Amino acid sequence: MRTEERVLEIIETARGKRAKFRDERVTMAHGAGGKATQSMIEGLFAPAFASESLEQLGDAGVLPELGVAITTDSFVVKPIRFPGGSIGELAVNGTVNDLAVSGARPRGLTLSMVLEEGLQADELRSEVEAIADAARRAEVEVVAGDTKVVERGHADSMYICTTGIGTLDPRARLSTAGIRPGDRILVSGRVGDHGMAIMLSRGEFELGADIRSDTRPLWPAADALLDAAGDSLHCMRDATRGGVASVVNELARASSVAMVLREAAVPVHPAVAGAAEILGLDPLYVANEGVLVAFVAAERAEQALAALRSVPGCEEAAEVGEVKSEPPGMVLVETGFGGRRVMDMLVGDPLPRIC
Amino acid sequence: MRTEERVLEIIETARGKRAKFRDERVTMAHGAGGKATQSMIEGLFAPAFASESLEQLGDAGVLPELGVAITTDSFVVKPIRFPGGSIGELAVNGTVNDLAVSGARPRGLTLSMVLEEGLQADELRSEVEAIADAARRAEVEVVAGDTKVVERGHADSMYICTTGIGTLDPRARLSTAGIRPGDRILVSGRVGDHGMAIMLSRGEFELGADIRSDTRPLWPAADALLDAAGDSLHCMRDATRGGVASVVNELARASSVAMVLREAAVPVHPAVAGAAEILGLDPLYVANEGVLVAFVAAERAEQALAALRSVPGCEEAAEVGEVKSEPPGMVLVETGFGGRRVMDMLVGDPLPRIC
Repeated sequence: MRTEERVLEIIETARGKRAKFRDERVTMAHGAGGKATQSMIEGLFAPAFASESLEQLGDAGVLPELGVAITTDSFVVKPIRFPGGSIGELAVNGTVNDLAVSGARPRGLTLSMVLEEGLQADELRSEVEAIADAARRAEVEVVAGDTKVVERGHADSMYICTTGIGTLDPRARLSTAGIRPGDRILVSGRVGDHGMAIMLSRGEFELGADIRSDTRPLWPAADALLDAAGDSLHCMRDATRGGVASVVNELARASSVAMVLREAAVPVHPAVAGAAEILGLDPLYVANEGVLVAFVAAERAEQALAALRSVPGCEEAAEVGEVKSEPPGMVLVETGFGGRRVMDMLVGDPLPRIC
Repeated sequence: MRTEERVLEIIETARGKRAKFRDERVTMAHGAGGKATQSMIEGLFAPAFASESLEQLGDAGVLPELGVAITTDSFVVKPIRFPGGSIGELAVNGTVNDLAVSGARPRGLTLSMVLEEGLQADELRSEVEAIADAARRAEVEVVAGDTKVVERGHADSMYICTTGIGTLDPRARLSTAGIRPGDRILVSGRVGDHGMAIMLSRGEFELGADIRSDTRPLWPAADALLDAAGDSLHCMRDATRGGVASVVNELARASSVAMVLREAAVPVHPAVAGAAEILGLDPLYVANEGVLVAFVAAERAEQALAALRSVPGCEEAAEVGEVKSEPPGMVLVETGFGGRRVMDMLVGDPLPRIC
C-alpha cells in the first residue's frame, strides 16, 4: 500500500468509516482477525448481505422477532490436538462463547465436519467425544449435523463448523456501539494462553514451557456479569483471533471512543510472557479461547469484577483500562515505564490457524 | 465384510436396527450419503450426541420450545462453478431446502467460509454475490458469518458451511416415522440433473451433453404441498447426496415400511438418462439440489401433485410409487419390463464431491 493510501486509511478509520477490500488475492492475514479480516468483512461481506444483524458486526446475529441469537464459526486449528484441548472442544466453546458475549444463553448447536479421506476412525471418534463432552459442560444440545469427505491432502484431518443458537437474556442491554467514555474495561482471565499453547505445540520453536489452552465456556462469566451489572454492562466480546488488542480496536472504532489500557494490569502467565518475548509477540494480540472483555459503567465496575472473580476459571479477572472520549477510534497503552503507545489493529498473521 | 456379517446386517436393517460404525479410516464413501454415511451417523454421531432432535435423523433439528428448526451443511463441490450454478448458490439452496422439507419457513442463514490462501479476490467476490442473490431469491437474511484461511493446497478454493434457521409452519405434521402403507410417493421434478451436471463439468468424460444443475429453493414447493395436503402430507425430504434412492431407503427403514417405485414414472431428462447409461449409473442414485420427495396419504395425492405442478420449476412433478407394508425396510423398483428389483442404499461413492 502506498503511503498516502495508508494515511488516508488511518484518517478514515479514525472517522469510523468502513474499510475497503482492495486485495487481489486471499492471504493468511485475511484469516487472522486483524486489519485484513476487517477490510474483507466491512468491504465485501457486509455490503453484499446488508442485513441489520450484520450491520452490527457483532459476534452473533440477532433475530429479534424469534428472540434468539445465532452465530457460526469454522475451526481449522493445526494441530487438531494440543495441550489443554482439541479442535472438537474448541468448536463447541468458540461458538457458545460468541453467544454468551452477545447476551444469549446457549441452547443448541449444529455441527458440520469436513473430513480428510484416510483420517483414522479413532481420531474422529475422539473428536466426536470431545464435542459431546464440551457440549454437556456448556449445557447445549447438538441438534443437527452434516459430514463431508474430501480427498487426502485437501484438508488437514478435519475442519469443523459449528453454529450456535441461544435465547436472548432479558437482563442484557448490550450493543457494539453502546460503550461510553468512563466505562471500565475488564478481562475475565489471563491473556494469550491459547495462541501460545498452539504455537509451542507445533514444535517449531525450541521452547518447552508448560502452557495449556484456556478453552472453556464463558456463559457462567457472562451470566455473573449480567447479574452484577445489569444494564451498566454495555458490551462484551470474547478475545479470540487477534486477542484483546483486536477487540478493543474494533470497539473503539464502532463506538467512536478512545480506549486506554494499563499494560501492568493485564494478567499474563509468566511462561506466556516469556515465550511471547522470545518470539517477539505482544500477548495482547495473542488469541484466547476462554477470555472475555467487558465494558462496564464505572459505578458498577467493582461489583462486576468481584462477580467475575467468583466464577471458576475467572479468578484472575482484572480491570485493565478505561474508555475515554479522545482521540476517537484509537487505543493507547500505558506502559510500565509511564509512557503511552498506540496499539493498532493486527497487521499480517503472526499466529496462523490457532482456531 | 465377510458374508455372514453382511447377512446379519441385512437382517438388522430389515428389523430397523441401527447400523454400526466399524471402519478403521474415513473414506470418500462416508461423504456420499449412502450406506457408509449412514453407519457413521447412526453408529458414531447419534449415540455420542444423543439429543432428541438427532434421534429423529431428519434433515433439520427442531427446538420446539423456540418454535424453530435449524439445519447445517458444508459444501465442498468441485469445481466451484458449474453449468447452472456455483458453490455459493448451492450453499444457500441446500440449506434452506433442508428447512423447507422439515416444514419450516427459512428465515435466517449463517455463513462460514474456509478460504484457500491465494484464492483470487474476484472468485471470492463472485461467490459472495452468488450467495447474496440466492439468499434474496430464497427470502432469507444472512445474519452472521465467519471466515478462516488455510494455506495453499489445504482446501480447494473454498469450502462453505451454511446453517439455516426457520420457523415451524403450523400446517406441518411431518415426521420421519410418519409414513404409512398406502401413501403415494411424489417427486417434485426430474431427477439426476445436478450430479450429472457436476460430473460432466469436470471434463473427465467425453460427453458434451447440455445438462444444468437444478439448484433452486424448495420452500415454494413445500408451501404448496402443505396448503394442498395439510396433515395428509406425512413426510418430505430433499433428494441430495445419494439421490431419490437413498431418501426412500432411509425412510423405508425409519418408518418400517416397504416402498415400491415405478421406474417408468420417474421423470428423467433424456440427456441425463443417456449420460447415466454410458457411465453405468442409475439416475435414482444421482444427487439433486432442487428436488423433494413427498409422502402423501392416497386421498390427497392427486391434489398435492396438482399443487406441486403449479409451482415454477416443478412442472414435471410426478407420482412415482407407493408405500406398502411388506417387506419392511425394503425398496423395490418395478422395471419397465414388468420385473421387480431391490433398490438398496448406495454403496461407495460413484460421484464424489457433488455438493
